[in-house]
Amino acid sequence: MSQSDARWIWYPGDLELFHGMKQNFSRVERGCAWPAFWKSEGFRQRVVYRREYELPCRTTFTVYGAPGLLGYVQVNGDKYPLNRTIACEGRVSVTVHAACIGCVPAVYVDGEIICSDTGWTVDDYCQPPVPAASNRYFTHPEQRVDTWPMLEREYEPVGTEEVNGGTLVAFATELTAQLEVRPLREGADLPTVYLGESRAEALDTALCYYFCRPDPRTLRCPRQAVRYAYVPGLNPDEVAVRAFHQYVDVPVRAWFRCEDEELNRIFEVAAHTFSLCCDVFFLDGVKRDKWIWSGDAYQSLFVNQYLTGDREIEQRTLTALRGNDPVTTHINTIVDYSLLWLLGVAEHCEAYGDRDYLRWMWPKMESLMALLLSQRDDEGFLVGRERDWVFVDWADFDRDGPLCAEQVYLAAALGVMARLAPPEQAAYYREQRDRLLSAIERRFWDEEKGAYIDSFTSGRRHVTRHANILAIVFELVSGDRQKRIAQQVLFNPEVPRITTPYFRFFELDALCRLGYLREVLGEIKAYWGGMLKLGAVTFWEEYDPELPLERQYAMYGDPYGKSLCHAWAASPIYLLSRYFVGLREDAASPSGYRVNVADGVFRRLDCTLCLGGRTVRIQYDGITTDAAELP
Amino acid sequence: MSQSDARWIWYPGDLELFHGMKQNFSRVERGCAWPAFWKSEGFRQRVVYRREYELPCRTTFTVYGAPGLLGYVQVNGDKYPLNRTIACEGRVSVTVHAACIGCVPAVYVDGEIICSDTGWTVDDYCQPPVPAASNRYFTHPEQRVDTWPMLEREYEPVGTEEVNGGTLVAFATELTAQLEVRPLREGADLPTVYLGESRAEALDTALCYYFCRPDPRTLRCPRQAVRYAYVPGLNPDEVAVRAFHQYVDVPVRAWFRCEDEELNRIFEVAAHTFSLCCDVFFLDGVKRDKWIWSGDAYQSLFVNQYLTGDREIEQRTLTALRGNDPVTTHINTIVDYSLLWLLGVAEHCEAYGDRDYLRWMWPKMESLMALLLSQRDDEGFLVGRERDWVFVDWADFDRDGPLCAEQVYLAAALGVMARLAPPEQAAYYREQRDRLLSAIERRFWDEEKGAYIDSFTSGRRHVTRHANILAIVFELVSGDRQKRIAQQVLFNPEVPRITTPYFRFFELDALCRLGYLREVLGEIKAYWGGMLKLGAVTFWEEYDPELPLERQYAMYGDPYGKSLCHAWAASPIYLLSRYFVGLREDAASPSGYRVNVADGVFRRLDCTLCLGGRTVRIQYDGITTDAAELP
Repeated sequence: MSQSDARWIWYPGDLELFHGMKQNFSRVERGCAWPAFWKSEGFRQRVVYRREYELPCRTTFTVYGAPGLLGYVQVNGDKYPLNRTIACEGRVSVTVHAACIGCVPAVYVDGEIICSDTGWTVDDYCQPPVPAASNRYFTHPEQRVDTWPMLEREYEPVGTEEVNGGTLVAFATELTAQLEVRPLREGADLPTVYLGESRAEALDTALCYYFCRPDPRTLRCPRQAVRYAYVPGLNPDEVAVRAFHQYVDVPVRAWFRCEDEELNRIFEVAAHTFSLCCDVFFLDGVKRDKWIWSGDAYQSLFVNQYLTGDREIEQRTLTALRGNDPVTTHINTIVDYSLLWLLGVAEHCEAYGDRDYLRWMWPKMESLMALLLSQRDDEGFLVGRERDWVFVDWADFDRDGPLCAEQVYLAAALGVMARLAPPEQAAYYREQRDRLLSAIERRFWDEEKGAYIDSFTSGRRHVTRHANILAIVFELVSGDRQKRIAQQVLFNPEVPRITTPYFRFFELDALCRLGYLREVLGEIKAYWGGMLKLGAVTFWEEYDPELPLERQYAMYGDPYGKSLCHAWAASPIYLLSRYFVGLREDAASPSGYRVNVADGVFRRLDCTLCLGGRTVRIQYDGITTDAAELP
Repeated sequence: MSQSDARWIWYPGDLELFHGMKQNFSRVERGCAWPAFWKSEGFRQRVVYRREYELPCRTTFTVYGAPGLLGYVQVNGDKYPLNRTIACEGRVSVTVHAACIGCVPAVYVDGEIICSDTGWTVDDYCQPPVPAASNRYFTHPEQRVDTWPMLEREYEPVGTEEVNGGTLVAFATELTAQLEVRPLREGADLPTVYLGESRAEALDTALCYYFCRPDPRTLRCPRQAVRYAYVPGLNPDEVAVRAFHQYVDVPVRAWFRCEDEELNRIFEVAAHTFSLCCDVFFLDGVKRDKWIWSGDAYQSLFVNQYLTGDREIEQRTLTALRGNDPVTTHINTIVDYSLLWLLGVAEHCEAYGDRDYLRWMWPKMESLMALLLSQRDDEGFLVGRERDWVFVDWADFDRDGPLCAEQVYLAAALGVMARLAPPEQAAYYREQRDRLLSAIERRFWDEEKGAYIDSFTSGRRHVTRHANILAIVFELVSGDRQKRIAQQVLFNPEVPRITTPYFRFFELDALCRLGYLREVLGEIKAYWGGMLKLGAVTFWEEYDPELPLERQYAMYGDPYGKSLCHAWAASPIYLLSRYFVGLREDAASPSGYRVNVADGVFRRLDCTLCLGGRTVRIQYDGITTDAAELP
């Protein structure tokens, strides 16, 4: 192996599509594999890599392929097999022909001069050649590109107890781990192990999500979410259990300290929760679904920007979600998730100033927007097609005719298209947005109620919070209108409460934008602090303060259906960073950012946050703020 | 395993796409894998199968999946894993969720009542559900759908000789075989074996196409084309070689006997040649390329109809060639191969009266034709895009501007579209065809030369045979014009000869249509008889009567580049059957066919030929003809 900068290379996006498919097919529940229920996008199975060299001297190189790859190397017209050292000199044209049915046809060119660093193009026999892609995870020729490299950390149980003649072990936190289960009693069979996010789940051998039997050779179980593990039939003297936590290297760079220890702990547990959900992609939860959902990913973008500043996981997730053109179905089958993908790409590219990613995604944004615009009715409102899911939230919307919230999303997405488009296209999107906004105003704004109504066709004038919140979050309404909405909707107890933490993200964001920081802080301490009081070490998919701990595990009609480590529960990181510490982009500032610590919230503050790839240390003593970029 | 009619089921077309990709990636040459150089279409990796039952009693069933398949079975909302017996009764709704990255996600439902026979639908989360597909090859739950089942027949060598201390064995015919190589000398290493279609190739260890080392456990080499095998270093007493010919079950049903033994032998060797090329798909040749070419497949359709009457291999080939919509590149990258695919589907559906296949392919025909029509220039002529290959034939065309032969193909394809279209669309295609024919007449017909010229833009008025032949074959010209073309082109020694057997198919077809049977018969005896005289036991990709045997093996600049067992060399079967025996469809006849034995060619004739799925025995005594359909 040479000392070159060689890496595995592939057709841009295809590694993400391959691993995205693997991820979406990886869900298991009570012994049943449960692949995601939407159109799953394939990768290109036949590509060719090309590069020209003017060699200063004779040199050698070797080409390796992904598992199962078939192909050959051509040097100035001569053919060579893979995995064999090839010598050449002078002016050479190197092509690597690669085909693979079951894996992305990535290759690794290993050599001192001729190697797969930058400068290779790749062609899919359909579109013009493009620069080949690579990443920091796949840099060694011995790697298998079908397996994402993980770091590993060993955990011993923090508690072991005998239950009904078996052994229950507890770990300090939820993990995504391979459990090692070593029977200590002579001649004992390898036991079945039952896992749980809660003690109750692990002990419920009939209904827990995961059970498994260790591999006879390695004694390890498959990598799964686990905090508690129960081994029936072997008492604590007869079995040793430990966990090998396996995780993708996406380091958390942020931390937060103020005088409120509860808030500090909320930030810390949120960071830990989110970090566990940062796998190859942003996952919704580590136990469930492990599918890549666009709506969940959208919220993860906001947390991730402040917490890890790792733009690659954002791009991997957005790339895998979108798939290839032509686009015929909505992301995750959900129309609003297609809209949130558009808004998410814009958020990502603007947060990091990443014009390259935008340039790559732009045609995909355009074609997805074209699909959305093709679904407008006679009045210009977006409606679902027969197999589309118009979701917005689990809530009792008046779904007669076009749904207002969906139109607000579309207006917001048209707004970012107008902002990001090349000048000659911007006018088109701006015009579509303006026309839609007028139609929303005409059809959905109810002046008497001071609110957007769900439906104008039913005559019921039903108000939910959703469209009203989104209109504020996406800055589609003026200050006066914002105030009316706050009064008539957000602080109106007659309007049904938001019940999902998913949409609570938008509601809290809207409240922050309107300056209701005290109310939001109270909510953070009550809701997230409430989970801490019940002993949570990771934040949950949902929390009902009315229920005792033992009744917190059910969801979706399943006794252990609730995820106890869920990405969207990390939103305090975003809310605290953006609105309370007040760190945000500022193109007008020499540093590129500004810090406006919220008045009257903190007595002191010392934290480090990421922003647009920077890491900024912020110290505040109640009067003055110091902010400095860390190396 | 039950006694049901269960079979493996999959999304229609996807098994063909999976195996087509495997086929197109299977070419090997001198140790290099050589996957086909065109856009390779993937199969759907996530589908769901559904069926409702009203069960008369309690019953059980088990679902099996393709290798690597992930999924679950749902019965009225309850989930079960694969590979487990499920009991149910009453009214049940069964769904099988299936995901697989590296193989078509086929499933097998095994049970007495609930089983994967007909009646299941399959859904790809994009288009409306369709009936699931199956075939006669995959009927047992133990089968792997990633491996096409083959029949096997053992061959001992017909000759063994010592050459340079090694052993050369010869088989009676070319085979697609796993060679078994068993060293007989104590302690001998497993040798490398060199294969050849000719003795010369097998002995040329540096330049032969295939070499391999037997598997240490089975002593077998991979399945490859072989007639001769050379084992250096082990003399005939030290090694035993035999061949296990592996072939797809596509039985030859036709045979031909007349008083001319040479003609009988030509039919027999052509049938044997063609049969060897009938693999999972129509292959061009058994040694090379083993890619699925549309132009070659088109000619195979005509032979196959008379020889095997197996409509499934025709459909498999056509389905695999076409891939999924949207279509963005031409089949095999060649514009005329897209046109030949359209003509081929029409030929197939009309020959077998297969409306179901036509109904399935029609949208794919329409979209491919739409792509072709989108490539017309201002005058309505079809031209290649930047990465398209306008092939027609290896010949010195005047390629300035649109090429005449390509327009003739397009007119023919528009003609079949008009003929097969639903009434409301037929007029459109007819109008396009008529307009194109007028433009061809105006721009390409040269009255003075009595011929279609290649190019009207260059001013060179260059005549090749191709467009003129195609105009006759596709019946686009009147009798008078046909006669002029025969005189001015076909029998004009100044017009360059057709040099490829590929296009000789069209030329001989045209000559037969014009009634020049004696000339065609002379050509068959000279060209194919010439190969027999050189000892051919299978017919070659090309034959030059001027060259001695040892100079017949080179082609494409490669000393062993010529395929010695090539499908298109089987065309005498078609020509003899259709024009000499004169068996063809006749809707007006009560039998659905008619036989018109050509006058003055045969003194007697006894043969069995296929037609539209029938098998017909024809006996002729020089005066009267008896024809009877066989069971």
